[in-house]
Amino acid sequence: MSELVGPVHVVGAGLLGTSVGLAARRAGLEVWLTDHNHEHVRTASGLGAGVPAPAEGAAQLTVVAVPPDHIAEVVVEALERGGVVTDVGSVKSLPLEQIADHAEEKLLACYVGSHPMAGSERSGPLAGTAALFDGRPWAITPHTHSSAGAIALVEALALLCGAEPVRLSPVEHDRAVARTSHLPHLLAVLTAGQLAEAQPEHLLLSGQGVRDVTRIAGGDPDLWGQILRSNHAAVGEILRDVQDDLARLVNALASSDPDRLGEILTRGVTGTRAIPGKHGGPALATASVYVSVPDEPGQLARLFADVGEIGVNVEDFYIDHDPARPVGLVELVVQDTAAESLRGSLETRKWLTHR
Amino acid sequence: MSELVGPVHVVGAGLLGTSVGLAARRAGLEVWLTDHNHEHVRTASGLGAGVPAPAEGAAQLTVVAVPPDHIAEVVVEALERGGVVTDVGSVKSLPLEQIADHAEEKLLACYVGSHPMAGSERSGPLAGTAALFDGRPWAITPHTHSSAGAIALVEALALLCGAEPVRLSPVEHDRAVARTSHLPHLLAVLTAGQLAEAQPEHLLLSGQGVRDVTRIAGGDPDLWGQILRSNHAAVGEILRDVQDDLARLVNALASSDPDRLGEILTRGVTGTRAIPGKHGGPALATASVYVSVPDEPGQLARLFADVGEIGVNVEDFYIDHDPARPVGLVELVVQDTAAESLRGSLETRKWLTHR
Repeated sequence: MSELVGPVHVVGAGLLGTSVGLAARRAGLEVWLTDHNHEHVRTASGLGAGVPAPAEGAAQLTVVAVPPDHIAEVVVEALERGGVVTDVGSVKSLPLEQIADHAEEKLLACYVGSHPMAGSERSGPLAGTAALFDGRPWAITPHTHSSAGAIALVEALALLCGAEPVRLSPVEHDRAVARTSHLPHLLAVLTAGQLAEAQPEHLLLSGQGVRDVTRIAGGDPDLWGQILRSNHAAVGEILRDVQDDLARLVNALASSDPDRLGEILTRGVTGTRAIPGKHGGPALATASVYVSVPDEPGQLARLFADVGEIGVNVEDFYIDHDPARPVGLVELVVQDTAAESLRGSLETRKWLTHR
Repeated sequence: MSELVGPVHVVGAGLLGTSVGLAARRAGLEVWLTDHNHEHVRTASGLGAGVPAPAEGAAQLTVVAVPPDHIAEVVVEALERGGVVTDVGSVKSLPLEQIADHAEEKLLACYVGSHPMAGSERSGPLAGTAALFDGRPWAITPHTHSSAGAIALVEALALLCGAEPVRLSPVEHDRAVARTSHLPHLLAVLTAGQLAEAQPEHLLLSGQGVRDVTRIAGGDPDLWGQILRSNHAAVGEILRDVQDDLARLVNALASSDPDRLGEILTRGVTGTRAIPGKHGGPALATASVYVSVPDEPGQLARLFADVGEIGVNVEDFYIDHDPARPVGLVELVVQDTAAESLRGSLETRKWLTHR
C-alpha cells in the first residue's frame, strides 16, 4: 500500500490542489479533480493537472485542498468513499478532532494530515505549478491511529512533489506554525493596524523596515481568520507569552537600567539567527554587497548580467524602494567567501558598490 | 544666512556623516571632518568626503552625526564654537531638552534638529555615498526658538543632499518614528524572541513571512537601545496602545464571533495600504508577475535582461528563498497596467510565469 500508483483524487482545485495535480501528472499518475467551482476544474484540467473525477469509484489517495472551515467535512466524505486521505490545511489538531467525531472509527486509520509549506500569496488554479513544492518542507502529521501504510503513502506524495517530509504530531505541528507563521502574521497585523490611524505626514517617514514587517499583514482576512480560529489554542498560548514579553518590554523601556532593554533586543538578534538557511541546514554564512542602480529600465538587467558573467550565485537580493530615489540600492546576498571578489569585479565594471 | 556656502563641519565620520560630506563636496563646498576615531577621518577624507577639521574657527554649518547618547553634548560644543548646528539623530525631543539645559540661551536659535530617513543596516565611513539621501525624506525639526535663517540653512543642506525636507516639530517627529520605525522594530524583536526558544524542528517550518517580519530585529542592540531609550515617552505610549490591541486580539481569538477577529485583520490590511508609495505620493497601483527561475548563476541575469528588453520598469522585486528550492520564485512588481503585457512577453521568451 505504500507505493503511490494512483489514482490521486484532488478535492479543491485552487493553488495547492492544482499544484499537487500537476506534480502527480508529471510523475505519470492518474489524477481526478473535484471543486465546487466547476470553472476551477476546467481551468486545472486545461493546465494538465488531471481530469474531472468520475461519479463513482475510490482513488488510492485523496488530497483535500479546500478552505480550512470545510476540511473536516470533505475528509470524512472522502474516507467514506475509500482509500487513504490526507489534507493540506495549515492547522492539524482541530480538523483531526472534527474528523474523529464524524468518521467511523475503522476509517480513521486511513487518514493522515499533512501541510506543505508553500507560498500562499497567490491563489486559484492558474497560479498552480508542479514546482511549487520543490525542496519545501512538507509536514506529515499522523495521529495515533494512522496506519503505517497510510503514513507511507502520504510521505510518498510529498516526495513525488519534490518536497522534504517532516514528521510531527498534529499538536506539535500546530505549536510550530503558531510560532513561525501565525504569530508573525498577527504582530505584522498589529504593526500595520497602528499605521491605519497615523497622520499621513507621519507616514512620509516610513522606511524599508516597516514595509518588511507589515507586508504579510496584507493577506486575505477571511482565509487568515479561518486559519487562526482553527489554531486558537496554540496561538492563544503564544500570544499570552507575548503579552508577558510586551509587559517586560514596557517596563524595560521605562527603567533606568539599559541592560534590561538590551537583553530583549539581543534575544531578538538570537531569534533571527535561529531561522534555518537554504536546504534546511544551519544558516549559510553570507555577506552583502550593496550596489547603486539607476532607477531606469534595463539597469537591473545590466547588473544581473554582470553578476551572472562574474559567476557568483546570488542567494538573495533586496531592492531599497523608498520614495523617489532616482538611484536604488540593491543588496546582493552571496556566500561570504565570494563577497569581496564580487565587489571588486563589479567595481571593475563601473558599478558603484558599498559594503 | 540661508544660502549654504560652507564650510560644513561634519562631526562623526560614520555612514551618515561621511555621506553628508560626500554630498557637500559634490556641491563644491568645503567640508571639515572630525571623529574621535582618527581612522574614520582618514578613511572619509580618502573617499573625498572632506579634510580633517582645523583646530580653530567656526564652520557656517556643523552637522552632528554621532551615536544618540552623545548628540546633545557634541551639539552644545558646536554651538559654542559658532555657526548653525544640526544633528542627524533618530530622535529629536530628548536631545533638544538636553541641549536647552546645557547651552547658553542666545545660542539656541542656531540649533535645528534634523533626521534623514536613510538606510542604517551598514555602518562606517566606507559605506558612505553621496547618493545615500537621494529622494529620501529628511525631517527638519525646528524648535520654538530656532531662527528662520538657521532653519533655511538646514533645509538647504537636505536639498543639497538630494533629499526632500519634511518639516515637523520635534514632538511630532518622535511620535511619527515611534509608529513607523520604533514600533515595527520592537514587534519584530518580540516575534524573533519567540523563535529564540523554539525547538529546532519547529523552525524547519519557517517560511518567507517570518523572515520578512523578523529581518530588522537583527539590528545592533546597542544602537537600538540608545534610540529607543531616548524616545521612551513616544514609544511607551504607542506600546501601551499595542498592549490594548493585543488584549483585544486575545479576546477576539477566544470569542465565538468571527467578526471580531476579522475586524482586527482588516485593519491590518488597511494599514499596509496607508504606507506611501514611491515619490511620497499615494501608493502606486501595482501588480505582481511571478516567474519561476532556476537557482543557478546567470538565470536572474537572463530574466532581468529580458525584462529590460521588454522595457517595463520594475518597481520592486522579491525572491522566495525558502530551503532548497532548485527553482526560485521571483516576484516582479510593476505598474498594474503593465503586468499582463509583461507576463505575455515573458511567456513568449519561454519563462514560466504565474499570476
